[in-house]
Amino acid sequence: MTVFDRLFANSTLSQLQEKDAHDPLAHKRAEFKLPEGVVYLDGNSLGALPLTVPSRLARVAEEEWGGQLIRSWTANSSSSGTGAAQDWMNLPDRVAAKIAPLIGAQPHEVAVGDSTSVNIFKLLAAALHMAAPERRVILTDADNFPTDLYMAQGLNALLGGRYELRPVPGANLEANLSGEVALTLLTEVDYRTGHRLDLAGLTAKAHGHGILTIWDLAHSAGAFPVDLNGAGADFAVGCGYKFLNGGPGAPSFLFVAERHQDSAQAFLSGWMGHVDPFEMARDFTPAPGARRYVVGTPTVLSLSALDAALDVFADVDMTVLRAKSLSLTDTFMELMEPLMAQYPLTLVTPRNHDERGSQVSYQHPQAREMMERLIGRGILGDFRTPDILRFGFTPLYHSHADVWRAVQGIKAALEEGGGT
Amino acid sequence: MTVFDRLFANSTLSQLQEKDAHDPLAHKRAEFKLPEGVVYLDGNSLGALPLTVPSRLARVAEEEWGGQLIRSWTANSSSSGTGAAQDWMNLPDRVAAKIAPLIGAQPHEVAVGDSTSVNIFKLLAAALHMAAPERRVILTDADNFPTDLYMAQGLNALLGGRYELRPVPGANLEANLSGEVALTLLTEVDYRTGHRLDLAGLTAKAHGHGILTIWDLAHSAGAFPVDLNGAGADFAVGCGYKFLNGGPGAPSFLFVAERHQDSAQAFLSGWMGHVDPFEMARDFTPAPGARRYVVGTPTVLSLSALDAALDVFADVDMTVLRAKSLSLTDTFMELMEPLMAQYPLTLVTPRNHDERGSQVSYQHPQAREMMERLIGRGILGDFRTPDILRFGFTPLYHSHADVWRAVQGIKAALEEGGGT
Repeated sequence: MTVFDRLFANSTLSQLQEKDAHDPLAHKRAEFKLPEGVVYLDGNSLGALPLTVPSRLARVAEEEWGGQLIRSWTANSSSSGTGAAQDWMNLPDRVAAKIAPLIGAQPHEVAVGDSTSVNIFKLLAAALHMAAPERRVILTDADNFPTDLYMAQGLNALLGGRYELRPVPGANLEANLSGEVALTLLTEVDYRTGHRLDLAGLTAKAHGHGILTIWDLAHSAGAFPVDLNGAGADFAVGCGYKFLNGGPGAPSFLFVAERHQDSAQAFLSGWMGHVDPFEMARDFTPAPGARRYVVGTPTVLSLSALDAALDVFADVDMTVLRAKSLSLTDTFMELMEPLMAQYPLTLVTPRNHDERGSQVSYQHPQAREMMERLIGRGILGDFRTPDILRFGFTPLYHSHADVWRAVQGIKAALEEGGGT
Repeated sequence: MTVFDRLFANSTLSQLQEKDAHDPLAHKRAEFKLPEGVVYLDGNSLGALPLTVPSRLARVAEEEWGGQLIRSWTANSSSSGTGAAQDWMNLPDRVAAKIAPLIGAQPHEVAVGDSTSVNIFKLLAAALHMAAPERRVILTDADNFPTDLYMAQGLNALLGGRYELRPVPGANLEANLSGEVALTLLTEVDYRTGHRLDLAGLTAKAHGHGILTIWDLAHSAGAFPVDLNGAGADFAVGCGYKFLNGGPGAPSFLFVAERHQDSAQAFLSGWMGHVDPFEMARDFTPAPGARRYVVGTPTVLSLSALDAALDVFADVDMTVLRAKSLSLTDTFMELMEPLMAQYPLTLVTPRNHDERGSQVSYQHPQAREMMERLIGRGILGDFRTPDILRFGFTPLYHSHADVWRAVQGIKAALEEGGGT
């Protein structure tokens, strides 16, 4: 019996099922819709549907909008708690309060609305305005998610090219911290490799050079415990539709540390960030705290879906979730090991727990075709250019047995590919 | 029998019911949910719920998101027509194509997504960048909707106060067109008075001075025929949740005339406006046409609701809709006439058809309290500071008998108020 055979023997599956039997998060799976015959390893692109969302959407559409009409903007504004409906005016703040504990923030440091891209623009504008004028460099990872780069390019063009967007390899970030850098724009977990930067360490080092930090938590929030205030972070954004399961294109969130709230300016100043929107004043006076970063009328339908989805986290200890995430990804890497010996697969995710998020990625020369074969077999991961197979693990709805099934599918797809 | 009594006599109601019997849009009312016992005169704040929306939302949530998961971003991309589902990547373009004929635009001149406020920012940035550098004035109506003013204030602050936002009374706009003006930022129909500016005339006069125009169609799109290209308009934005009935906080739209698309720049450049988002290139290359103004991941739930809502317009002749709107508002003004003689009501909406949209507003010294009493009676209009009672009329779901009922309610509320 080879190593390979041993790993795939039923005894391995039983051992994994034994782990699942003691999984403190096992009951969470029943809170999601997961299609039959699919192992969904793409919750880091679009989180699965929490079962409470469709009924919430139906209620918001038929009763709050259809039945109560405009009265829903202000009705029930004294109610609170997860069952609270209507009071659409404060819905962004209620959602912010649910996200805050997941990222180590205070509720008034978080604003919810708009896309991650637009929120990056808001924070870049605020942070550049706060930085000393001689600091002209926006330091970023050359492998940062493209929209982060694009938004910085667009803002810089709007400001007449005053700044230099400097993309450097992740390993060189620290060496590039200097007095000419205004801010760092970094994504904690790389969307391709799953490599996780040292958020607290880099923040402290940046501060040592007088540099402000903007962290993109797209692949962090809801995936593991994040402690922005513990790390002394300045600004952050994150995604509502990946590990927070808020639905396709769910509203994004942003974070502005309390100590910056007087000096940071909301340049995208819309009426819903005004201290009193219905005063209809001619001049913008910002609302207290992060609420000033809410710009236009909240997208109530999408925002309500996110609000309902976040209730999934109400009874989840993020430390326990992280432990399970590591167990799932360790198991995956271990089961994939023999396949790496046989096929042209290269692990690009660090093995070290501290250096990764909740995904595991491999390079493969025919990655695009491989992922198509996998999807055909019901193993839903992601292809990412140029040659990355990306597998996201969501401890809320994955079991160790799912990991086993996924690797079985990958093995079959590799065999189908004819050994390459 | 006084004039007053005659107007409220049953014979008046029968005449109105006779008009309703010949209403070519009467069948459209059945396509909306309208609560019993309510006359909803606030469709210019939040349009009523089209009955197709809840089932569309349920399908998008349960099947497209819950069942097909990330596959819905690209699945069915060859399908078309109003029944087309999934293909979320092109959903913004499909919605844009439905809005285009309502505003006299070509589909590739329209982009859908983000809030009206954010879209105003995009267009202000693009237009200011195109204007000659010596033009430093942004000309606007002092009574423009506050978020239009706020967004201009924020952008100007971001640009170091380089520009002057010059708010002037509507009557003085024309006199203020000059070589120092970069652009006009105007809302076609005033949100308080319902006064409608001459979009085509002002555009032509602005162009005569080399000035670019940005039109806010919040109270125009879906309320009456708009012909942007006929007027030679440069840029426009509009609202998805008023007369387009897309739901609370529905995505907004923007318009960039074809002739400007090469020179106007999308400074809020996000990955969904890239020519090939999944190429994951490091530099932003804009998509063709207005699609480049789509920034982040589309809010699929809210956008799907708007998509379904727009189908209501598929069989509507906007000329017929406008004729009915004028008949409804003329009737309202006529029935209100005797009440103006008895109570401190001042009509602030022009009587001239060309000078108004689909709302009628009155000043009243206790407008806030009056509107509370009206809402208590099921007559849902809006109070707007400082002293405006605003009544919006939606020809898709209002009858002349509704107008009669509304005036009955207003009469009773005025009597309840003790004659003041």
